Amino acid sequence: MVGLTRVGAAKLSVSRRQRATPYTPRVTALGVTDFSVVNHTILPKGFGRSVAEDYWHLRSAVQLWDVGCQRQVEVSGRDAARLVQYLTPRDLTAAEVGQCLYAPLIDDDAGMLNDPIILKLAEDRFWLSIADADILLWVRGLAHGMGFEAEIDEPDVWPLAVQGPRAVELASRVFGDVLRDLPFFRFVPVTFAERPLLVARSGYSLQGGFEIYVDGFDRGTAVWDALWAAGRDLDLAPGSPNLIERIESGLLSYGNEMTRANNPLECNLDRFCRLDGAIDCIGLDALRRIAEAGPERRIRGLRFDGDPCPPCQHPWPLRVDGGYAGQVTSAIWSPRFEQNVALAMLERTHWDEGTPVSIECGDGSLRRGEVCDLPMEET
Amino acid sequence: MVGLTRVGAAKLSVSRRQRATPYTPRVTALGVTDFSVVNHTILPKGFGRSVAEDYWHLRSAVQLWDVGCQRQVEVSGRDAARLVQYLTPRDLTAAEVGQCLYAPLIDDDAGMLNDPIILKLAEDRFWLSIADADILLWVRGLAHGMGFEAEIDEPDVWPLAVQGPRAVELASRVFGDVLRDLPFFRFVPVTFAERPLLVARSGYSLQGGFEIYVDGFDRGTAVWDALWAAGRDLDLAPGSPNLIERIESGLLSYGNEMTRANNPLECNLDRFCRLDGAIDCIGLDALRRIAEAGPERRIRGLRFDGDPCPPCQHPWPLRVDGGYAGQVTSAIWSPRFEQNVALAMLERTHWDEGTPVSIECGDGSLRRGEVCDLPMEET
Repeated sequence: MVGLTRVGAAKLSVSRRQRATPYTPRVTALGVTDFSVVNHTILPKGFGRSVAEDYWHLRSAVQLWDVGCQRQVEVSGRDAARLVQYLTPRDLTAAEVGQCLYAPLIDDDAGMLNDPIILKLAEDRFWLSIADADILLWVRGLAHGMGFEAEIDEPDVWPLAVQGPRAVELASRVFGDVLRDLPFFRFVPVTFAERPLLVARSGYSLQGGFEIYVDGFDRGTAVWDALWAAGRDLDLAPGSPNLIERIESGLLSYGNEMTRANNPLECNLDRFCRLDGAIDCIGLDALRRIAEAGPERRIRGLRFDGDPCPPCQHPWPLRVDGGYAGQVTSAIWSPRFEQNVALAMLERTHWDEGTPVSIECGDGSLRRGEVCDLPMEET
Repeated sequence: MVGLTRVGAAKLSVSRRQRATPYTPRVTALGVTDFSVVNHTILPKGFGRSVAEDYWHLRSAVQLWDVGCQRQVEVSGRDAARLVQYLTPRDLTAAEVGQCLYAPLIDDDAGMLNDPIILKLAEDRFWLSIADADILLWVRGLAHGMGFEAEIDEPDVWPLAVQGPRAVELASRVFGDVLRDLPFFRFVPVTFAERPLLVARSGYSLQGGFEIYVDGFDRGTAVWDALWAAGRDLDLAPGSPNLIERIESGLLSYGNEMTRANNPLECNLDRFCRLDGAIDCIGLDALRRIAEAGPERRIRGLRFDGDPCPPCQHPWPLRVDGGYAGQVTSAIWSPRFEQNVALAMLERTHWDEGTPVSIECGDGSLRRGEVCDLPMEET
């Protein structure tokens, strides 16, 4: 298993198939050193600093993230609202234009297909701002088969994230004071270079900030450059979703923490599952059966001892008294807790806070750890 | 644009989301230096030798490729045959069990969604061996919406390719002489370690060879090791789909040569489009309209002058007399032709063999080239 972590030393091949974003020339000029691939698009993951250095910076200053890989699936037309509701057990009936809604998407077995932010642009127009999966194909297949009258496409929109405690100052300098009072998970149109631009108070960290839905590949560098210039005195740096911060905050990553083999209750998304028949959604029967029996496992936090752990490329088994107790799905050393922190899928019998577990770590070592709640709090 | 090619110097981040294959420990031990990501799975792309060195070796010896990223979508059950036929304009009526069928998958606009090899395992059981897209979601969405009675899932199957002129010798040493006479695009069950294993005469090169559909992640290293041991005297080396060979051979790469914006006729797949109403397939009306008017562009070969070109990460525009004539989608220096070779989408007015074109190359240079037929022949 040790060999697997060496994958990290290999380079990423480039081609048209793994799409660049409008910001790729900028992050390249800033010395990007690591990439991931999400939605057939490259995601910068590092700039030569350690993940810990990036973590402290994200918690104290402000960062600009190229999250163009967070592609949008636009659903519009006569049946758009009915179709989007059919995709998720979250009740969207009272959703307002200008609202962002985190929503599990499930299949007919209640298996998780994605966990996008849904932006309600109009009564008959939505963006699903997705994690890594071709949800466009899923929605188009469903719509064709069920005869929904809707347009489903990927618009020319490339999100850029501004994250960190100084994000409000930076974003309002560039886009106006309207952003200072924008509530969490709301979006507004601002004006940039005499054209409208949607900005949401949201993002893939708990440090505060915005996601800018840059519509038009050709506008990308202008928006990046305006933010970059305005951030000079704010210690602005390029960044990326930070694994330490994400784990401590309990932010899930589709494909890591959960796959199609998991249901929303296993992902602690109970509050986004309306099961009483008030909405028409795929997978509701399966979800009801699961809810009645109760989920067999749930995502929990985990802290564990020993040296900084390697990257978690395969789930690591958890044991209690030698028996299977669950699996670690993401893990890294936390410089704040001075312990390894992880997200894990714990079996029902072992998911209580404080449960001691053994971790079969990817480096072959056996570590002692303890189940904890999310987000992780300092003790 | 120069900066973009530097993406190739950045490392690929690892996580559970970008899946390892059963062969990852072996290719890592053999010094893999480059990866791509296909179907959320890592694809080895280089082992420290140049693409040209790998090319000559592939044409003269035999290589073992980790193509576990070529995931299978298994469709089985009462309506399986009807559902699979509904996905493609290729007439599958006369398909036989044991046959591999290259087939365009299209959507309701006749846009290309994928170009898998379909393996007919039984009258009611198929594998779609796919290029990079979540076809599983597409098929599940369609099946749910249309009420097809079928099971659709991703089986635990991890293809391994043996490619090159000595592939027959190598594969038959390990799996038996039955492979010597196996016709192209047929598969048979062989016995390995007392269990059946499907082997097809196929692969993503024109140098000959097999794809071994290793069913069971845990069988992977045993199959790899058996081939590795048997190839010692055959100059066996680890390899990967080779860009020079692929371009010269005219083998398409979904996401590079074509996307959902292209139809099968633009991809020269006319012979796989049955339009007379004998089959029931999605997108047939759109495809008929396109066929009547004739496609507006087609994929062609291209050879062009100058120094070895950079990787083609964005399509490069082609010009004739200053006007738009098409775009290059994949390109590399060919040591055999001592010219750059490319695959390109040529507009109807400029797609004839021998048409001279100007290429706006990714390094900022303007190159002179000429349209050619595929596969490329030595002149």
